[in-house]
Amino acid sequence: MSDTPPNRSHGRLSIKASLTSVRKPRDLMEEHLNLNAAFRAKVVTLFPEAFPGVLGHSLTGRALKDGKWALDTIALRDFGVGKHKNVDDTPAGGGAGMVLRPDVVGNALAVAARGTPQDRTRWPVVYLSPRGRRFDQAMARRFASGAGITLLCGRFEGVDERVLEHFEVEEVSLGDFVLTGGEIAAQALLDATVRLLPGVLGNEESTEEESHSNGLLEHPQYTRPAEWEGRAIPEVLMSGHHGKIAQWRRQMSEALTKERRPDLWEKHRKG
Amino acid sequence: MSDTPPNRSHGRLSIKASLTSVRKPRDLMEEHLNLNAAFRAKVVTLFPEAFPGVLGHSLTGRALKDGKWALDTIALRDFGVGKHKNVDDTPAGGGAGMVLRPDVVGNALAVAARGTPQDRTRWPVVYLSPRGRRFDQAMARRFASGAGITLLCGRFEGVDERVLEHFEVEEVSLGDFVLTGGEIAAQALLDATVRLLPGVLGNEESTEEESHSNGLLEHPQYTRPAEWEGRAIPEVLMSGHHGKIAQWRRQMSEALTKERRPDLWEKHRKG
Repeated sequence: MSDTPPNRSHGRLSIKASLTSVRKPRDLMEEHLNLNAAFRAKVVTLFPEAFPGVLGHSLTGRALKDGKWALDTIALRDFGVGKHKNVDDTPAGGGAGMVLRPDVVGNALAVAARGTPQDRTRWPVVYLSPRGRRFDQAMARRFASGAGITLLCGRFEGVDERVLEHFEVEEVSLGDFVLTGGEIAAQALLDATVRLLPGVLGNEESTEEESHSNGLLEHPQYTRPAEWEGRAIPEVLMSGHHGKIAQWRRQMSEALTKERRPDLWEKHRKG
Repeated sequence: MSDTPPNRSHGRLSIKASLTSVRKPRDLMEEHLNLNAAFRAKVVTLFPEAFPGVLGHSLTGRALKDGKWALDTIALRDFGVGKHKNVDDTPAGGGAGMVLRPDVVGNALAVAARGTPQDRTRWPVVYLSPRGRRFDQAMARRFASGAGITLLCGRFEGVDERVLEHFEVEEVSLGDFVLTGGEIAAQALLDATVRLLPGVLGNEESTEEESHSNGLLEHPQYTRPAEWEGRAIPEVLMSGHHGKIAQWRRQMSEALTKERRPDLWEKHRKG
């Protein structure tokens, strides 16, 4: 597997293992733990200190503290080659930017794979890249139904194609825009996935009623005060008539979807 | 405007102004600065401590330190009502979750608006929400061409519709998935936008060659070593024949786009 000392990162925040530490017992312990543990995310990144980031706050942060999911970061730099721990090199065939080396990424992914099921449906290995299939709620549900996930955050021009093939890596794109790196995309993917895990959201209903759960955009919402800046809450919402309220909300959802997302509306009508 | 003391946050990290501080001179100074300054992002959030997050690292972090862009966080909690500084209330007409109050959000947006142009094309006010139009590279370019941007990060079920109308707020969605809040979406939007600002990317070419800049997914990339795990770099890339390399890359881009993103391929063919 790796001939680079696997300086692995454990736990929620990156902890650098000493080069001389005996890793065998700890690995065995972890493998054992992984069998029973909650959903586990392993993130291979040049910026382990950027995690958990936003995920450490609010619902996902509380769930992390409560052990409803776990987060390991694996510092790609630790697997760099040579005196300068290089992780990238110029693209074969020329061109701008730099490409992450297959040996460096491969060694990091090999360490991430320890104690995880080989079956990619149970533990997908995902590279966040604008070349991937687009992330959506169905994908979040698929990821949340697995045992865990490994995320590779790219930087620069990309990652050597061979390592993506070798590790059966699934490329996932957050959307049709370019980010400086995969870290924010990884956090978005994890946020959307983790909130679907059992017990993370306080209110089970919330996952059902939201935008995209029924293929329509959500209706407008109102709350106190009843009047604000000369604007009142629509009368129907104050009527207490549940049937009329549901009907109004449905109409608003449909109108909003037609206007803003004709693509979703088409899908909804056909489905 | 606001009758809540506007505990404003300044600079890259949230700094809470004292309730008794004299704000007039500082505000004037800021308004003056805003006229000449680099691109400025103002983020209204319940989690100001989650910023700059990933944006504080790498290229966007260096650009932030170099003053090529600026980031203010405005803590929504400071505008909360009553003893408990409540920011949300139950939805009018019933339903799960909580809705952010129009008065609370309105007062925060009013503070954010200080010293910014009223013209929404020069300074958009964006609410990150799954109900919005989908964020894409064209939107990132539009935002990067302005003087700055105000981002409202939602939580809970949503934001009272009246405040979105009153402040001519543009709703933008990161994609067809549900996040626990708008903070990660705001960071993604800012990352994609800031990297397009002059002088942020070292290499001007990089913005041109990437996926989505020409409507096609990027071709596979390779780098050293020439052979890895029994896999060699495709011969054509080692040939030194620039014409053939460009042709191969083009073909790979087209094949990948057809396979993974038939929607982009259709658009590309028609355009």
